Amino acid sequence: MMKHVVIVGGGFAGVYAARGLLKRRDVKVTLISKRNYFLFIPMLHEVATGGLSGYNLAEPYRGILRGKNFSFLQDEVREVDLVKRRVACAHGEVPYDYLVLATGSTTNFFGTKGAEEHCFVLKSLEDAFRLKNQVVRKAEEAFMAKEKDVQEQKLSVVIVGAGPTGVELAIEMQELLEQICKSNASFHGRPSVYLIQRGDRVIPQIPRLQGDAERQLKKHGVHVLTGAGVTEVRKDGVVLQDGRIIAADTVVWSAGVKPSIVKTIPDVAGEKRCLVVDAYLRLLQFPEVFVIGDCATYIPEGEKTPIPMLAQVATEQGKSVGKNLARLLGKRELVPFSFKLKGQFISLGKGYGAGFIGPLKLTGFKAWWLNRTIYLFKILGAGNKLKTAWEWTLNLFTKRDACEH
Amino acid sequence: MMKHVVIVGGGFAGVYAARGLLKRRDVKVTLISKRNYFLFIPMLHEVATGGLSGYNLAEPYRGILRGKNFSFLQDEVREVDLVKRRVACAHGEVPYDYLVLATGSTTNFFGTKGAEEHCFVLKSLEDAFRLKNQVVRKAEEAFMAKEKDVQEQKLSVVIVGAGPTGVELAIEMQELLEQICKSNASFHGRPSVYLIQRGDRVIPQIPRLQGDAERQLKKHGVHVLTGAGVTEVRKDGVVLQDGRIIAADTVVWSAGVKPSIVKTIPDVAGEKRCLVVDAYLRLLQFPEVFVIGDCATYIPEGEKTPIPMLAQVATEQGKSVGKNLARLLGKRELVPFSFKLKGQFISLGKGYGAGFIGPLKLTGFKAWWLNRTIYLFKILGAGNKLKTAWEWTLNLFTKRDACEH
Repeated sequence: MMKHVVIVGGGFAGVYAARGLLKRRDVKVTLISKRNYFLFIPMLHEVATGGLSGYNLAEPYRGILRGKNFSFLQDEVREVDLVKRRVACAHGEVPYDYLVLATGSTTNFFGTKGAEEHCFVLKSLEDAFRLKNQVVRKAEEAFMAKEKDVQEQKLSVVIVGAGPTGVELAIEMQELLEQICKSNASFHGRPSVYLIQRGDRVIPQIPRLQGDAERQLKKHGVHVLTGAGVTEVRKDGVVLQDGRIIAADTVVWSAGVKPSIVKTIPDVAGEKRCLVVDAYLRLLQFPEVFVIGDCATYIPEGEKTPIPMLAQVATEQGKSVGKNLARLLGKRELVPFSFKLKGQFISLGKGYGAGFIGPLKLTGFKAWWLNRTIYLFKILGAGNKLKTAWEWTLNLFTKRDACEH
Repeated sequence: MMKHVVIVGGGFAGVYAARGLLKRRDVKVTLISKRNYFLFIPMLHEVATGGLSGYNLAEPYRGILRGKNFSFLQDEVREVDLVKRRVACAHGEVPYDYLVLATGSTTNFFGTKGAEEHCFVLKSLEDAFRLKNQVVRKAEEAFMAKEKDVQEQKLSVVIVGAGPTGVELAIEMQELLEQICKSNASFHGRPSVYLIQRGDRVIPQIPRLQGDAERQLKKHGVHVLTGAGVTEVRKDGVVLQDGRIIAADTVVWSAGVKPSIVKTIPDVAGEKRCLVVDAYLRLLQFPEVFVIGDCATYIPEGEKTPIPMLAQVATEQGKSVGKNLARLLGKRELVPFSFKLKGQFISLGKGYGAGFIGPLKLTGFKAWWLNRTIYLFKILGAGNKLKTAWEWTLNLFTKRDACEH
């Protein structure tokens, strides 16, 4: 009988695993996801700041994963019974021979008071639209306000966490706010974007890009506060460790993620809420279960810390598991997972980027262009590639979208 | 002192009135609208069926209406005091010298039982997204359902009202549903779109296009039910006058609109809930108040019925009032409003349209192309024109967007 592989979660990890597997005809593949489309999450900050419409970043699974042996279930996974080998969904149970868990990550507020309640995050299209609408709406309110401090509070955006996303978002948010204020000829107030970082420097993950990022943040007039921890988030601003208060109607949390783990029987996540995998990305106790992407905790041999949560890692893990499952079905030996960072790019405002591929470092327009080109190859769906390329090209000459949709 | 013109409502009528007025420097113009952008409503059916992303149809007022003498208020109008000449908004009162009411229309359910509660409508971007999400979600549910009649109900869409919008929507909905079903290789059910019309023929408003519309509806497999009235809308379908029941999870109401009237002191709308205007589009009792677009009831001299509610009419009325207000300020004589339908186009599926300009009648691809070209001239904002043109071009070669956003 045909073996049944069930994949839970359709981010980079899940989709690339499915693509690899679907090249074979001797296996049934079922992908389960709450939404019906793959979303290109690394570009969400551009949606939140009116650079991209967002719709080109989404592609229905049924469009990119095809075949008579492929099934898609738009459903919510409630529990996985690892012993009986079945996945309990809202609409029924799905048995499996092999399981791939790729449920991604959720925002980590680290228990900060008020953060979950008052912060905007950037994990879905809805999140991005919500943030943009908030910024646009608050600007209109600022234009109607009489008092200067009320105007300033409404036009202030605090971004907590200066990783790559925080930095990209801060610069583009400043651009969007300035465009909106400029569009009102009778208004003379100015917007403020605050970028708050616990450590000494921005983007601790990519030291090679720190200098460029800091220069561009300064050039754009973003207020960078390093060595500053947030102890509380309120409806009207944040409280810092040293007692300072920053008044702002909009606070974005970009300070960390944690694995999003589904409930399993028996509970293999334990108290630490992490799913540790072996060199083949399998659960130690259940070798027919693969865990990949942000929800997996993989510590390479000889290392002490887990491999970072990156789209690149998730993609490579998806590909690796796709191939290893094919090998399993063909009764061939598995190949251990290995990862080497190919390069990394960040956008630093309209038409400006920074990054590196191997030893080659680039900044400015050519980095921006290369960043876009690489992303275009990764966006799934031919129509989406063309539409996004056109949007990016037009964006160089046109304004950001400042509609409150 | 500079005269202050307040415009309530930012559809075609309000925006074109503002554009005309802003050419003068001796007048202050304030536009009040609940949302911060102008929306190109005639294309919403394409958003609901995944043909356009929707974002290119919206342009912030601050982008298309500029000048130091222009103010925009994103606010809700609660009441207009015609005697004291002021508009009461949620955020405060706005006094005026001249008032332009352009509040548009809302859906008219004609008191049909259950219609307001269960029907989808097409008046805003949110409406269009909601309808598309519903159709996509129901298709996924149909794929998971076991019983054939449940599948059919979930894949059935009833459209009540076969005016231009109903016809355009029916054909494109059929195209979207067929694309979705085709994307699931293991599914063999078929979608059904029902178009229900009380009268004998579709598009009673444009007899010259009836034949083409009926042929294309048939070709696409839309079930057209003429001479059929809907007496009740339920959660799971509609009941017709003759007792027939059509089981469908999705019902769209496209059978009529009624003026959207703001509360005034004194109440000049009366029991009939309409604002009748003179040949200059002014309120009979308050000549400093102009009423234009769908919310106005204008009966041309010698005619018995009011001029129809069309985007073309609203645009021309906006232009007329813009010019007449300028004449008033310059103490020149007013010019009465006159309207002649220039032509009309409808889309009848991918790359196919029908319509006429004066005596010239066109069908097929050239009508589709001309329809698009005319719309492009009317879409406001250069970036939006370019983005929409590109989307339409790509749409000829790519699929509809079937994401449940």
